[in-house]
Amino acid sequence: MDIKEYIDKNRERWFEELFSLLRMPSVSAKPEHKDDMYRCAKRLTELLVEAGADRADVYETAGHPVVFGEKTVDPSARTVLVYGHYDVQPPEPLDKWLTDPFEPVIHDDAIWCRGANDDKGQLFMHLKAFEYLMRTGQLRHNVKFLFEGEEEIGSGSLPAWVREHKEMLASDVILVSDTTMISDKVPSINCGMRGLAYLEVTVTGPNKDLHSGHYGGSIANPVNTLCDMISSLIDDDGRITVPGFYDDVVELSEADRAQLARAPFSQSEFNEFLGIDEVKGEKGYTTMERIGIRPCLDVCGIWGGYTGPGTKTVLPSTAHAKISMRLVPNQDGATITRLFEEHFRAIAPKSVHVDVKAYESGNGFLIPITSEAFQAASRAMADVYGVEPVPSRGGGSIAILAEMQRILGIDPLLMGFGLERDTIHSPNESYLLSQFFAGVRSLALFYGYYPAKAQAMM
Amino acid sequence: MDIKEYIDKNRERWFEELFSLLRMPSVSAKPEHKDDMYRCAKRLTELLVEAGADRADVYETAGHPVVFGEKTVDPSARTVLVYGHYDVQPPEPLDKWLTDPFEPVIHDDAIWCRGANDDKGQLFMHLKAFEYLMRTGQLRHNVKFLFEGEEEIGSGSLPAWVREHKEMLASDVILVSDTTMISDKVPSINCGMRGLAYLEVTVTGPNKDLHSGHYGGSIANPVNTLCDMISSLIDDDGRITVPGFYDDVVELSEADRAQLARAPFSQSEFNEFLGIDEVKGEKGYTTMERIGIRPCLDVCGIWGGYTGPGTKTVLPSTAHAKISMRLVPNQDGATITRLFEEHFRAIAPKSVHVDVKAYESGNGFLIPITSEAFQAASRAMADVYGVEPVPSRGGGSIAILAEMQRILGIDPLLMGFGLERDTIHSPNESYLLSQFFAGVRSLALFYGYYPAKAQAMM
Repeated sequence: MDIKEYIDKNRERWFEELFSLLRMPSVSAKPEHKDDMYRCAKRLTELLVEAGADRADVYETAGHPVVFGEKTVDPSARTVLVYGHYDVQPPEPLDKWLTDPFEPVIHDDAIWCRGANDDKGQLFMHLKAFEYLMRTGQLRHNVKFLFEGEEEIGSGSLPAWVREHKEMLASDVILVSDTTMISDKVPSINCGMRGLAYLEVTVTGPNKDLHSGHYGGSIANPVNTLCDMISSLIDDDGRITVPGFYDDVVELSEADRAQLARAPFSQSEFNEFLGIDEVKGEKGYTTMERIGIRPCLDVCGIWGGYTGPGTKTVLPSTAHAKISMRLVPNQDGATITRLFEEHFRAIAPKSVHVDVKAYESGNGFLIPITSEAFQAASRAMADVYGVEPVPSRGGGSIAILAEMQRILGIDPLLMGFGLERDTIHSPNESYLLSQFFAGVRSLALFYGYYPAKAQAMM
Repeated sequence: MDIKEYIDKNRERWFEELFSLLRMPSVSAKPEHKDDMYRCAKRLTELLVEAGADRADVYETAGHPVVFGEKTVDPSARTVLVYGHYDVQPPEPLDKWLTDPFEPVIHDDAIWCRGANDDKGQLFMHLKAFEYLMRTGQLRHNVKFLFEGEEEIGSGSLPAWVREHKEMLASDVILVSDTTMISDKVPSINCGMRGLAYLEVTVTGPNKDLHSGHYGGSIANPVNTLCDMISSLIDDDGRITVPGFYDDVVELSEADRAQLARAPFSQSEFNEFLGIDEVKGEKGYTTMERIGIRPCLDVCGIWGGYTGPGTKTVLPSTAHAKISMRLVPNQDGATITRLFEEHFRAIAPKSVHVDVKAYESGNGFLIPITSEAFQAASRAMADVYGVEPVPSRGGGSIAILAEMQRILGIDPLLMGFGLERDTIHSPNESYLLSQFFAGVRSLALFYGYYPAKAQAMM
């Protein structure tokens, strides 16, 4: 049975299975969802075994559990290690959702739900491509599945777990669907991602909230001070002012930049999609370069004082911000975290106290586009989309992949089928059905093109 | 019966009555407390009549109701118009309260509750001084009581109501207890207050929340941009950069500044009370001057993006701030609001959209310290505290008093018995019993010293 026919016969069951995962609010950032994380991990082991895995188990960690399953068809064959994550971003702001964030609905040819794409929807494609190959007797590779529950909060527990289970995880390629492609007309394969350093800063002025009339003007307001400090972190050229920040950044050659510039991009469509009049970023780089090959610093959240309706004339005691820095290959996440922390403390005026908390950090990485795995992925996607995929550099981070690449000595391969329209991490996350099915087909074809055994040396 | 004896006989009943007011969460800023506002207004009319008023009624307005009551003893005598407000600040942040914010408790010789001081506790002193004079047959003046429910949100409905009831409100002095004194060892009478302009600003970047990896570095982040804009509002000398902001500020003469500097003040005690190492403010002015005679700009609240626990890698669509400016006499609140709004829009980069919402504005005012009313207040407080009160300039704002002064042509008189330790507008608001009783006694004595009829011309 060819895959299109198989999809037609099974799609309703597949949706039911996927929806059972989507309905679980597996928000890793919130302690109150700890039980949901376990339920979701457990459900994945059931789905893995139903799809044909020899076994699938929930592994406890210091944080949220890891799911691991495997199917051995031939000990001498190559092994594909599928990585995905079942945790999702918090759904807030809730008032912006048009539907319940944890009740999937199919509408406008897409699935709408938190996690519909990132990453429950994308990891589910792997389960179904595997199921198809198993049921039709076509699977030639050994397959291992590793699904973690902490990707959205920095994969804190996974490196230790991977080191501990290094032998069990031995394989030839780490296959991942957790990224986007340029568009459904212009398929692309990610050949590099950015690293991440994420911190939370707190500025404390007076030791209690004060009446803004009785004190205003006479002491440092921690919100104003935090604004001053954040403002000073990026200069007029859009460069980050943390000393040493750019020391390890590798400047791309003009040739490399020209190669990257071949990917189709419309600045006006980009602006229109975002509803902005003008872009802003580091001087001397294009929008695609600013996303793909340059580091950046963004405030992901800020709060302090009275934020309810109406007015409250308060001079707050504290102000807080969550700050993320995206890093490029060769920048070390831990080093950047340390440099930021030192700098932020150094620029604090004596009129306030500053606290810095480092949440997570990870490195960027590059993937060799000449490998057999990359070439197999490229052929598979060319078959499905009718055009050769473009190698691209995504701006996001999957910090754990750089770690796994280092610990296991295996390169990742990023076959991502998300689109920017899916607005992952935002309200109304969705995943196009056409991309979901194209993903299942591309993955099934990948196993066809990727040699099951090492080629004999010529 | 002298007042001390009267207090001893009635204090338990007084607390019960005051607590019945304090238990009502009359938070004017929050629509869900609309009913509580009515209950509180109604309760005040009962207490006014029980204390001896001829009548007391709840008056509807476009916003929260106004309470008005009166006692006429002699149509040819002078009339004292007591002003107070029964609305309170929101209690947030709730987790900082050691007790229920709306369940008063007496502890450490103070009443602890939202509104214990501001202004339910202070307005209640007037009810009890009035009750004492009535019950002991000593009242020589006509007394009118005006209690509003919108002071904490800018007294929006009151000016129209005052204009409409101008005749009913005719009187000789507006007596107010809604301010602090320097300390319970150094009584003071406020002879000037600052005005206020309060606005909310919103900066919008992309039209939706985005993944900070997929877009970070390529577009303006509205939080970073808001920080840039706020940071630019105050220069390195602590001066506000809004063009025209200082145009109407009257510089005090060296003699006036020397006069103000006579009030006792310890910078080290000030810093210690607030837990700060250094103060910050406009260059060239002392701490007391920065509070009393100079304008300032404070962010009272800021929010945007993800503010929950842990991390969320979001590039937010919007960022918001509530900004208050304290103004000095001669600065016009409406003009400053307009100048701020124009400036904030003008400095917005093209990469974002900016929205500005003006909440309220009001002017500062000065009170002539040579008036009969001021002198009577001074004598009364000198009797109670054993030392002559110091004329002082408070940093807070009671915008409506400047309006009433203008509409009714009557000067206010600020006999405030709060202390900084009361932390009004903050968690754990309290009011010292000793100040409460000293206030009742001082007010009763004020009626004794304030001539009930105009003095014959010499």
